[in-house]
Amino acid sequence: MTCKSVEKVAQAIEQMVTQGAGPWQAAVCALAMAGYKARHLDQSEAKEHLKKAQARLIATRPTNTALAQRLELAMQAAEMALEAETPLDQAITQWLGETRRQIYADYATRGRLGADLIEDGDGILTMCFAETSFILALAMAWADGKKIHVYVPETRPFLQGAKLTAPSIHELGIPVTLMGDNMASGLMAQGKIQKYFTAADLITVDGHVVNKVGTYQHAIAARYHNVPFYAFAWGLDPTRPDRASVEIEMRNPDEIKTFKGTPVTHPNIEAIYPAFDITPPELVSGIVMKNGVVRPEKFGGSY
Amino acid sequence: MTCKSVEKVAQAIEQMVTQGAGPWQAAVCALAMAGYKARHLDQSEAKEHLKKAQARLIATRPTNTALAQRLELAMQAAEMALEAETPLDQAITQWLGETRRQIYADYATRGRLGADLIEDGDGILTMCFAETSFILALAMAWADGKKIHVYVPETRPFLQGAKLTAPSIHELGIPVTLMGDNMASGLMAQGKIQKYFTAADLITVDGHVVNKVGTYQHAIAARYHNVPFYAFAWGLDPTRPDRASVEIEMRNPDEIKTFKGTPVTHPNIEAIYPAFDITPPELVSGIVMKNGVVRPEKFGGSY
Repeated sequence: MTCKSVEKVAQAIEQMVTQGAGPWQAAVCALAMAGYKARHLDQSEAKEHLKKAQARLIATRPTNTALAQRLELAMQAAEMALEAETPLDQAITQWLGETRRQIYADYATRGRLGADLIEDGDGILTMCFAETSFILALAMAWADGKKIHVYVPETRPFLQGAKLTAPSIHELGIPVTLMGDNMASGLMAQGKIQKYFTAADLITVDGHVVNKVGTYQHAIAARYHNVPFYAFAWGLDPTRPDRASVEIEMRNPDEIKTFKGTPVTHPNIEAIYPAFDITPPELVSGIVMKNGVVRPEKFGGSY
Repeated sequence: MTCKSVEKVAQAIEQMVTQGAGPWQAAVCALAMAGYKARHLDQSEAKEHLKKAQARLIATRPTNTALAQRLELAMQAAEMALEAETPLDQAITQWLGETRRQIYADYATRGRLGADLIEDGDGILTMCFAETSFILALAMAWADGKKIHVYVPETRPFLQGAKLTAPSIHELGIPVTLMGDNMASGLMAQGKIQKYFTAADLITVDGHVVNKVGTYQHAIAARYHNVPFYAFAWGLDPTRPDRASVEIEMRNPDEIKTFKGTPVTHPNIEAIYPAFDITPPELVSGIVMKNGVVRPEKFGGSY
């Protein structure tokens, strides 16, 4: 998809055209585009133009605050370029290139940590698309000779599990089974699941894991069956002290009431689509971060 | 849908054309049709013909054994007619009429028991289509002036929640919210759910509740949030002592891999679709049966 304005990029992010590491990179590229379009403006007008683009891009997804944090860093790079009177778009894309290199190095580090948590013979449950570090963890465990089998819930209504996660694992040649979002606990009761791994869109200072809706119910079921739950994350968000400070994105209920435009229920029925849920630290065995696998309470918060 | 042979009725039951009290009544009507078609056969040939029809109809749904139990009773009525040399189809439809009257009286009794479990202000979670007695319980609680709100998971992949349960409740004028199968635990954490009600396709002698896949994960989440779980049921199945004796129907994985014929994943990816799961008695607050709301361990089994 080609987007020729900040507004089009923002709409694409809202429509979830890209997942995982996609949205924040698309947002930073949109900021660079705004910088380029501001090249003939004076300094204060250019700054105003960038601020407006930044605000629109931050508003796309209220729950995952990593996008906002990275846009803020890109803005700092742009402001330095403004003062130095060098091109804004080049400053932002240079910042993006450096950050991307660092982040892909982090993916590899966290992938290794995740692979070492996996044991030979493990059945592994995931939810939604657990990011590059999870896929890398599977690839590394498989390369280490560990026989694994991955179980992927489809992740209604956007079907990231069916459309993205299961095909990614299948491409690696690792055995993978797709199922509904209502089937994992039955597999746990049959002893088929030994580990549960997800990404985390946000981790609060007191260790709550915010991730795609459905993560929480599997975390409860995992605890009931003594299956450890690990979440891959960049780190915590210092601006989110606890669950009360988290904004859960409420998406358009029509995504529940229709499938590719075909209605699945009576048109007058009310529906809800909270895109994320919150798992408390007591259900989390560890957060896989670049410095190691950390218990959420080690973050220094209380729960 | 009109079916002019036992085989067509069996296929319609397999394709889940009818739900709740529909399948067993359709199966008994098919047995009556077999009896009518056998009217010119001699006694042993007619019995053979009926036995064949009975076996085909029992094979339609291996998990819910109520259909098999009722077909057996209808067969006994047919065998008495065979000996008395009276028309088989009339004997079977007469048995059906009497049994239906009795069962609808039971629905009303169980509806009343369910309504009395509901408190003013309750948020009520259900799963799949929890049968006539659940809908009656809601209608009676509402008529008693209790303000309630019902939350209905869509029930992938067949979407009974979206297509049948939510519209049924909406028709009664009771507030209802449709959602994905991955969203109930988030609502529980927000304090929006006070009761969890489902049907039961089968109850084992030792008190395990077998019901539509997804029932179990909500039962685990309900216990985690101190929400009581009640299942509406006819009674236990004396031929199923424990969970090991239950056959879980594994349906066609294409129902997960496609939506109305549209693929949702890579064609080579393996999928599973277990149609039911098993909730242990320790997670069940009570079984709503015609004689009262009974704790599963009172069935006399051990767990």
